[in-house]
Amino acid sequence: MSELPLFTIDTELDGLSRIKLSSPIKLPNATGYLWNRAMVMQVNCRGYVNSQFMQPEPAKYSYAPNMEAKSFIQPEHSYFSHHPGRFFYLKDEDSGEIISLPYEPKRVQLDKFSFELGNSDITWLIEHFGLQITIKVNLTKEDLIECWLFSVKNLTETKKNISVYPYFSIGYMSWMNQSATFDKSLNAIVAHSVTPYQKVADYFANKQLKDTTFFLSDTPPTAWHANQKDFEGEGGLHQPSALVAENLGNVEARYETPVAVMQFQQPLLPNEHKTYQFLFGPVKDTSEIDELREKYLGHSQRQKAIKTYHEYISQSEACLTINSNNDSFDDFVNHWLPRQMYYHGDVNRLSTDPQTRNYIQDNMGMAFINSKQTREAYILAVSQQAINGAMPEGVLLHSDAKLKYINQVPHADHGVWLPICLSVYLNETADVSLLSEMITFADSSQEQSFICHIELALDYLLNATDRRGLSFIEQGDWCDPMNMVGYKGQGVSTWLSLATAYALNTWCDLCNEYNIDINQQKYNEYRFAAKAINAAVNKYLWHGQWFARGITDDGRVFGTDKDLEGKIFLNPQSWSMLSGAANEHQQLDMIEAISEQLITPQGVMMLAPSYTRMVEDIGRITQKHPGVSENGSVYNHAAIFYIYALYQVGQNNLAFELLCKMLPSLDNAEITGQLPVYIPNYYRGAFYQFPEQAGRSSHLFNTGTTSWLYRCLVEELCGLKGCASGLRVAPKIPASLQKLSGQRIFREAIVNFDIEQTKEVLNMELLLDKHIITGNVLTCLQAGQHYQLQVRLPKVSEDNVQ
Amino acid sequence: MSELPLFTIDTELDGLSRIKLSSPIKLPNATGYLWNRAMVMQVNCRGYVNSQFMQPEPAKYSYAPNMEAKSFIQPEHSYFSHHPGRFFYLKDEDSGEIISLPYEPKRVQLDKFSFELGNSDITWLIEHFGLQITIKVNLTKEDLIECWLFSVKNLTETKKNISVYPYFSIGYMSWMNQSATFDKSLNAIVAHSVTPYQKVADYFANKQLKDTTFFLSDTPPTAWHANQKDFEGEGGLHQPSALVAENLGNVEARYETPVAVMQFQQPLLPNEHKTYQFLFGPVKDTSEIDELREKYLGHSQRQKAIKTYHEYISQSEACLTINSNNDSFDDFVNHWLPRQMYYHGDVNRLSTDPQTRNYIQDNMGMAFINSKQTREAYILAVSQQAINGAMPEGVLLHSDAKLKYINQVPHADHGVWLPICLSVYLNETADVSLLSEMITFADSSQEQSFICHIELALDYLLNATDRRGLSFIEQGDWCDPMNMVGYKGQGVSTWLSLATAYALNTWCDLCNEYNIDINQQKYNEYRFAAKAINAAVNKYLWHGQWFARGITDDGRVFGTDKDLEGKIFLNPQSWSMLSGAANEHQQLDMIEAISEQLITPQGVMMLAPSYTRMVEDIGRITQKHPGVSENGSVYNHAAIFYIYALYQVGQNNLAFELLCKMLPSLDNAEITGQLPVYIPNYYRGAFYQFPEQAGRSSHLFNTGTTSWLYRCLVEELCGLKGCASGLRVAPKIPASLQKLSGQRIFREAIVNFDIEQTKEVLNMELLLDKHIITGNVLTCLQAGQHYQLQVRLPKVSEDNVQ
Repeated sequence: MSELPLFTIDTELDGLSRIKLSSPIKLPNATGYLWNRAMVMQVNCRGYVNSQFMQPEPAKYSYAPNMEAKSFIQPEHSYFSHHPGRFFYLKDEDSGEIISLPYEPKRVQLDKFSFELGNSDITWLIEHFGLQITIKVNLTKEDLIECWLFSVKNLTETKKNISVYPYFSIGYMSWMNQSATFDKSLNAIVAHSVTPYQKVADYFANKQLKDTTFFLSDTPPTAWHANQKDFEGEGGLHQPSALVAENLGNVEARYETPVAVMQFQQPLLPNEHKTYQFLFGPVKDTSEIDELREKYLGHSQRQKAIKTYHEYISQSEACLTINSNNDSFDDFVNHWLPRQMYYHGDVNRLSTDPQTRNYIQDNMGMAFINSKQTREAYILAVSQQAINGAMPEGVLLHSDAKLKYINQVPHADHGVWLPICLSVYLNETADVSLLSEMITFADSSQEQSFICHIELALDYLLNATDRRGLSFIEQGDWCDPMNMVGYKGQGVSTWLSLATAYALNTWCDLCNEYNIDINQQKYNEYRFAAKAINAAVNKYLWHGQWFARGITDDGRVFGTDKDLEGKIFLNPQSWSMLSGAANEHQQLDMIEAISEQLITPQGVMMLAPSYTRMVEDIGRITQKHPGVSENGSVYNHAAIFYIYALYQVGQNNLAFELLCKMLPSLDNAEITGQLPVYIPNYYRGAFYQFPEQAGRSSHLFNTGTTSWLYRCLVEELCGLKGCASGLRVAPKIPASLQKLSGQRIFREAIVNFDIEQTKEVLNMELLLDKHIITGNVLTCLQAGQHYQLQVRLPKVSEDNVQ
Repeated sequence: MSELPLFTIDTELDGLSRIKLSSPIKLPNATGYLWNRAMVMQVNCRGYVNSQFMQPEPAKYSYAPNMEAKSFIQPEHSYFSHHPGRFFYLKDEDSGEIISLPYEPKRVQLDKFSFELGNSDITWLIEHFGLQITIKVNLTKEDLIECWLFSVKNLTETKKNISVYPYFSIGYMSWMNQSATFDKSLNAIVAHSVTPYQKVADYFANKQLKDTTFFLSDTPPTAWHANQKDFEGEGGLHQPSALVAENLGNVEARYETPVAVMQFQQPLLPNEHKTYQFLFGPVKDTSEIDELREKYLGHSQRQKAIKTYHEYISQSEACLTINSNNDSFDDFVNHWLPRQMYYHGDVNRLSTDPQTRNYIQDNMGMAFINSKQTREAYILAVSQQAINGAMPEGVLLHSDAKLKYINQVPHADHGVWLPICLSVYLNETADVSLLSEMITFADSSQEQSFICHIELALDYLLNATDRRGLSFIEQGDWCDPMNMVGYKGQGVSTWLSLATAYALNTWCDLCNEYNIDINQQKYNEYRFAAKAINAAVNKYLWHGQWFARGITDDGRVFGTDKDLEGKIFLNPQSWSMLSGAANEHQQLDMIEAISEQLITPQGVMMLAPSYTRMVEDIGRITQKHPGVSENGSVYNHAAIFYIYALYQVGQNNLAFELLCKMLPSLDNAEITGQLPVYIPNYYRGAFYQFPEQAGRSSHLFNTGTTSWLYRCLVEELCGLKGCASGLRVAPKIPASLQKLSGQRIFREAIVNFDIEQTKEVLNMELLLDKHIITGNVLTCLQAGQHYQLQVRLPKVSEDNVQ
């Protein structure tokens, strides 16, 4: 391979970056992802693809070679040679030599290889055989279609004769019926199937399913092949028998595994280039293929689609741009993080029943991008609340959506998120009108104000406590698989107790800040209750140097030094800082314990040591693989809570250090195995138990981390947080960061800011458009206006852990 | 490859045969199968394996590389390079050359290859590199374990240095937890997992699951590897990177896909040979591995296990042995067919809820092997009948079994099978005591006689008829996917009407024959009802040359010449012959229509033309792929009904011709793609629509065909059928078969018979031990005695289709 650097970040004209990887081998699981509201595809650098679309439940159009289980998206997805992919075999007809692009399945070392992740496209630039090859894919704004471009140019001085064979996996579609053939009138390979079912009712339910997969070309192929097994023959996927002959055999699949292969024989004069356009996706019937062809085939159609799709993804632009003089950090914060946050907020992880806690937090992130969507989401969420105050397990986004998987298990925490996350919405918008919206319930047509919905949720939480005032955990809280601490009805959760106190305090704070019309007695009760919870947690759950995680049904306190595994959990410590339960001494104790037991090069583990065997009064978490997911990985959602909490107690240096560890970057890519285009839901933990695997990315870009991380950047690091009267300025710059500049869009005002540490001041000084500001709130900002904000801070101490 | 014949049948000392295939390429899907009451494995000639065990529901211990869907066994299973298998890489350490055995994944052409299917073992004999290699697998009688033997001998004059690397797929076990490592104390690779679940109740339900897979060797390995991805590396499964180094790297899998690979470095002097023993299977914990090791590891333990397992499979010996001078035919009838029938009867297809119709028919076959099991099965079946007479959809074989898949759909036919199949039990045993057994119901503890259970079932059927006297089909009859003919409650089934008539007549015939104590009025009613049904079927459903298949909810008669697809169905014709609905003219019309439209080189199709699009008043059958399963394949279960019916109406030549077409043989193996060790549930049909695929075997050995086929051979072809007074002799020898001899075990008497056609007689003549028998019933047979029966028949006409 060429001696290019393994990774680079190029910034393009529009300010967006492209992440480039110059080897298909070093980071074999590196992926990028594209999505729209109806589908998502995760594209691996070697040509493998995971894709699904909504109808309305997640479905496939490019399948594995065997019957796949339907499941939610799993971390650490593993690839194998027949994994679904989009490959291009390329034969040099003069020499007979064959390669496959971008890399799989032949795995031939290429002269030049570049896997490039752009904002709205994924591209490979390859050179081999004296040919320059570009492979590019993008989605469209709204349709169920992958748009592929394959272009090849002869870089040599002699004529070349080549055959290009796109090989697009269709795979095992159905045991009832699957077949594929070439449709000349469409110039497409069309694979029909019938989704298996057995009950009559399902026939009618399935009638609208898009059970047909098509692969359409703009160029009539020389020949084609639609039969996976026959194509491969005895040669195997790495040297398919069908490629031996001059032409493919035009073979159908008839109750055989379909594939879409076309052959394009093409002479190329010196410098000549040839471009092919392909469309691939699911349809209900061939008339839909016709429509998609009309809409997307052809140069101008393609350009228009690319533009529209780019505009769609570009809506991910959020309220903050920074310049910290660290290109990698800035690029991630300015570009990839908002993009990921927008994915979460706009399409809700392509789920029809997002967990309520995810839905509310993901939409907290949307408040930084498009606050109208947050508003709508929060109204929808409370409209599915029960009149007794209980928030639902998941928010149903379609009339025919159902609660699935983990949403069939009762969790006790769904009430805390709305008051907590609402503060971001109010800070960003000051839109108190939301609070007086009148909204019905899941089980009652009675209309109540948004305020009342929140208070019902809080009251419900307060009622769901034991004689000590601690919150029952039922079959889980934020931590889904902690399902047997309280399944008998007695066990309590430290975290949930603290989260309840924090939710109460946050709501009271919002009432103060936004002058919300709350009954004073209620207000007092809430403040009192929060204190009582904090006191109870201190009384029953402080053990030595940190807070335990809970008390089981049978009264066993766990998550303490007495345990051999699961000694210390991160969440109770973080949230005791948020709720006010931990005093300063306790905070320092906890920070020390966490540093000793939980911090790894990739961030903070969620617990340690990871469980290696089932603990029957804790539950499913202890059965997960040690270091994976909730069982002691660097679970970034928990890590960001800790970082957010550290900011609340003034531990700005440590907070920033951990925040940087969390971010994927080119520096840690060889450890994490991923490119810096998203925060994964976890990095492998169990750092002391299984150091060899520690640090690996889950490669799963669904995570509640993004909105909290962005919140930390906006409200804490930059300290540009909204309040009732305007924009409050209180940067929490670490000692390591001398200067930070950027732009903050706030209630449509454009504030360009420069923050610097200087020995010249003892207290923060603010200049807005060169005028000194008294206090730290910018009250005068006007929508549409540009401002220049200068913030001078006294030098920050290197170490604020006491 | 060597110039051996592609297939051979060798008969061994014990009279059992071995089927041998000398190429891994010509019949790539050829398989054999081994089973015991707890597990089954289907072994492909190239080394792929499908295996499952019962705990009590079917489960895996060797998985695909991705999350597989749980489903019932599907036809035309497809293989791909990472499909579960048991492979042995073999490195010539002197040359560095590597092959894989038996064939996959490297697919190197071997000097000699023989895939051998024995009664209770599957073996490969291979020569390559001057080495003779034997690979052999058998199961045990009762445990969950595959017992493998790998032996290698140096055939050359020089010392050789080799490494043997067994590679046993473990695959993607679980997204919750999967890991594998080498356990030195066990000398085994042990892969742990946790079956994924989310609900607390499932934790307790799953506690007993055998979630651990182990691979144990009798020889300490030089090195090992347990990490699939790392083993394979960039080389791929066809040239794994881990085999490049001198020794494997002893690599664990930690939340990675496990595999079991060991390396045995071995010098081999001229003529020296070395044998390795391996055990592979699922366990709950390592103590179980210890127990299995004690029980099965070592030469004498292995020999004992082989013997015990052989004895188990040898219990499949059934009541008939024939010699027709066609070795292939005789071998199949004498050996493989009873073996398959025993599999069905003894382990009920390894289902915990066999469909009632399958359960009763499969146990009809057991009456020819071990009639006690038939007796018990029939008692169990009626004990799950509802007191209103309805037979259940499936028979639950475990207390915690549930009705699954198709058993959740209401079918109307379950009542007809018991009276029909009971006749075989009574014919074989004359055990009328069964009829007075007192048995309770699924929904009542009231005890009723077996007779009463049968009559309740018949009465229930008679009540489930419309104003015309035709049987409602509900959501299916024998034909499961014909689910929308009558789902609105009106549609009727020709077949079920005829089957009801046949069941009524059969029951009345049995009452006559066995002097069963039935109320005379009831008897008359049943006879009358059967006639009335036959008349109604004739009145409403005879269309031109054959009987239609039914009348839909909306009154449309279908399965006639007016239809473009599904014009003619086989079952109504067959069963009109059985029920007596068809007169002789009709019979000949039907036979002619069937010959023209349904007969193919591989047998009789179930319908034609196959449906190519959904017909909403017929249902799911029309959505299956044309020519597959019920949609017009040569569905052998339906074909054998036709053959049985032909025998009833004296069409002995045609019956035998079709019977021979159905049997897999070495002659048709290149068309069917399977070896003659089982009858598949279907051969591809749609002969006129998709001739290219027609004739292919489904490779699925679960089929209701076997017991009926055996019945045809015993009771019809040989005409050695039991009756109340003894053994009735009435052979239905075709013109093509001049002589037929054999042995019939009947009520423990051993009757050696010789049947011949001769011009010398005008009527059948019987000699028993050289004494002339008057009439055709042998009334004097004594258990344990040997007899010599000579049957002389007048010459049979070549053509008895008029």
